Amino acid sequence: MQAIIDYINQNRQRYIDDLKEIVRIPSISCSNEHKPEVERCGHYLAQKMREWGLSHAEVIPTPGHPVVYGEWMGAPGKPTVLIYGHFDVQPVEPLELWETPPFEPSLRDGNLYGRGAIDDKGQVYIHLKAIEAHLKNGNRLPVNVKFIVEGEEEIGSEHLEDFLKRYREKLSADVCVISDTPMLDKGIPSICYGLRGLTYMEVEVQGPKTDLHSGSFGGTVANPANVLAQIIYKLKDSRGRVKVPGFYDKVAAITDQERSNLASLPFHERDFLKLTGSPKLTGEAGYSTLERVWARPTLDVNGLVSGHTGEGAKTIIPSWARAKISMRLVPHQDADEIAELFSNYVRKITPKTVRVEVRKLSSGRGFLAPYDHPGFQAAIRALEQGFGKKAVFIREGGSIPFVGTIHEILQRPCILLGFGLPDENSHAPNERLDLENYHQGIISVAHLYEELSQVAW
Amino acid sequence: MQAIIDYINQNRQRYIDDLKEIVRIPSISCSNEHKPEVERCGHYLAQKMREWGLSHAEVIPTPGHPVVYGEWMGAPGKPTVLIYGHFDVQPVEPLELWETPPFEPSLRDGNLYGRGAIDDKGQVYIHLKAIEAHLKNGNRLPVNVKFIVEGEEEIGSEHLEDFLKRYREKLSADVCVISDTPMLDKGIPSICYGLRGLTYMEVEVQGPKTDLHSGSFGGTVANPANVLAQIIYKLKDSRGRVKVPGFYDKVAAITDQERSNLASLPFHERDFLKLTGSPKLTGEAGYSTLERVWARPTLDVNGLVSGHTGEGAKTIIPSWARAKISMRLVPHQDADEIAELFSNYVRKITPKTVRVEVRKLSSGRGFLAPYDHPGFQAAIRALEQGFGKKAVFIREGGSIPFVGTIHEILQRPCILLGFGLPDENSHAPNERLDLENYHQGIISVAHLYEELSQVAW
Repeated sequence: MQAIIDYINQNRQRYIDDLKEIVRIPSISCSNEHKPEVERCGHYLAQKMREWGLSHAEVIPTPGHPVVYGEWMGAPGKPTVLIYGHFDVQPVEPLELWETPPFEPSLRDGNLYGRGAIDDKGQVYIHLKAIEAHLKNGNRLPVNVKFIVEGEEEIGSEHLEDFLKRYREKLSADVCVISDTPMLDKGIPSICYGLRGLTYMEVEVQGPKTDLHSGSFGGTVANPANVLAQIIYKLKDSRGRVKVPGFYDKVAAITDQERSNLASLPFHERDFLKLTGSPKLTGEAGYSTLERVWARPTLDVNGLVSGHTGEGAKTIIPSWARAKISMRLVPHQDADEIAELFSNYVRKITPKTVRVEVRKLSSGRGFLAPYDHPGFQAAIRALEQGFGKKAVFIREGGSIPFVGTIHEILQRPCILLGFGLPDENSHAPNERLDLENYHQGIISVAHLYEELSQVAW
Repeated sequence: MQAIIDYINQNRQRYIDDLKEIVRIPSISCSNEHKPEVERCGHYLAQKMREWGLSHAEVIPTPGHPVVYGEWMGAPGKPTVLIYGHFDVQPVEPLELWETPPFEPSLRDGNLYGRGAIDDKGQVYIHLKAIEAHLKNGNRLPVNVKFIVEGEEEIGSEHLEDFLKRYREKLSADVCVISDTPMLDKGIPSICYGLRGLTYMEVEVQGPKTDLHSGSFGGTVANPANVLAQIIYKLKDSRGRVKVPGFYDKVAAITDQERSNLASLPFHERDFLKLTGSPKLTGEAGYSTLERVWARPTLDVNGLVSGHTGEGAKTIIPSWARAKISMRLVPHQDADEIAELFSNYVRKITPKTVRVEVRKLSSGRGFLAPYDHPGFQAAIRALEQGFGKKAVFIREGGSIPFVGTIHEILQRPCILLGFGLPDENSHAPNERLDLENYHQGIISVAHLYEELSQVAW
């Protein structure tokens, strides 16, 4: 391994320069105008995979943007690692807030600035550069690798599920490594083993056929906005628990081991509170903040609209009132079942003085990896060698639907090995990559392949 | 009186033609562009007052649109009647929904169509034409009359209060007759003796400093939209009563006499329900629909806005949530005191996990006339002679702030003698005046002056 690490250290600057080249390509997947650039980026990446030693690389079309597939299968009898990443990027507006242009990568204060630097081109390159280091030093890898780098992550991975099903055989592997999540904080290597799911609903309460004069009618008909408030109020109790019957039935309890792990993390409530700008933290009784955000389901109103929303005083009883309400779920809640329980409950608590419509807008399941699996211990050892520090196990309160998709279709352990920092602006102006993280990430991943080769799958 | 009534009958068509002339003037008070037309309309009206026999008429400027003042004071020792109306009109948009142009008055199906036909030019002319009939038949009126016809009613009578205070002496009278309200229904002459007041508030709940990602933060901070729903829910109890402490303290109870009067009115819940389009009627327990809308205070959300109000599913915890909430009041609730009670209560029930701002947007007191006063009996007799039918006493659920203003400053009984019909589109396209009502109204008012002359004030 020492020769490999030496090579990574010697090529530190070139590895950055190589990354800058792909960051220059404006592969914005949500923009029709940029479709040719997304395509170009895929072909560029496949070419680089071949250049840097993968035995095969191709651009596989989908009905949307293509997937780049690459592999090196020269280690028969050894485990196969499937690596997931994406080469598409978020849009760049508002452009005026960028200190340097998003597609002219620029080095400042130990960071590489540019759209896609961390999300997710930089993380894809952490793997490619680790592979290059192995292959340039002994012409071999300790494991077989398969790469899928998709072009639609930022627009919801619409065709990924079909792709995975279609190429299930081709993609068969022992373990899947996904590098698209953040670390807990700078200098704290992190392995994410849990994601929350999501059920997103819309509730519309309908009353009078048009807005009514609140003088001529006020006091005689149910007001849809008042009724909506009542419905929302009845969704959670005073202890912060969701009152939808059956909501908690399938929730995986937090184990004692996990509880003590979460409590041991370098997490500071005061910093977290400051980040929110709220007057104080609150939530479900009996759980810590990290437990609440990572390991417990919850319910939030995402939007409200009814009646007069402009300036001044318009005296109406609104004809309708609408709320967007989403629930963050945890394993093993079933997102679609939750949607149904929610709908039934809302219909039940709605008075007969109005009509109600409940619609599901989207849903996705949560994810929980068995982090006592030896593969996770291998990842811990690899990160320690890269960062000089023991990695922590974290979860993530958000939802990354493709992780659930990959996990469900390929039925293999998924290790979320992310190198992003919480403040790297991955969807905002001035996206950046911490170059120390990039370098230590490459060393970690070079070790990871070695470590994973020794795990019995 | 017979000569006077004969004159009104003989001049029925000319009275309509005269009204058409003033309806042609687009005196839209809210439109800067129409300021000269409002001015022109005032001068036109003053000239007509003189032409039709008032001994004096003038256009009195205010910082906004002028007030037209006219008088005939030739009956020394007799009571003085102050008549209120307005010559400004609502805007006409959407223009494409008018069957004939708003300022080209048109006769169809026994109606005069045009902006201002009923609100309020037609009702001003009902008085002017009754006066003309008296003065052209004997050169006298049974009472002294003073007319104030303002030009700012449709924009909130902004300068009326100052005007009334400034000219309090000039306007002194025994009774005030206001013709700007609707009848209960076609063929049912009505005297309105009560109006509700209004306190209009805005509540803003503030949580995180910006919208937060509902995955990364959901479950750890209070959601302003959820909290706002909780606040709204706590404003009313399950029996439809407002829970603001002290809210009902000054409410004038419905007397047994009034209760049986309201119960005797030709009011049909099924028709009323149909008008609303709501699934069913509801409201404060223990009161009938008419009692609820005319004689009981209530509280309604007029508008809600928070977070994501557009299409689709945006997963945020909104930074703030806002509601417009208004309360319809009844005598003798004090609108400003209610605003304070409301603010205190909302602040008290708001949890410390958010910040709350409560603002008063507007307020106006209710109005209740002593309808057992002999002046009201005189009006009943007059209407019976005009319409051939006993008039009913009604209240109005809406608020007409200038009535309270007039009542408070002049300290005289106010009789609301309205000739509008509920479906005459007074603020909508195709505003119309029922010509039968116009005619019978003129006859009624001709009798009214006679009847009022015999009341001891």
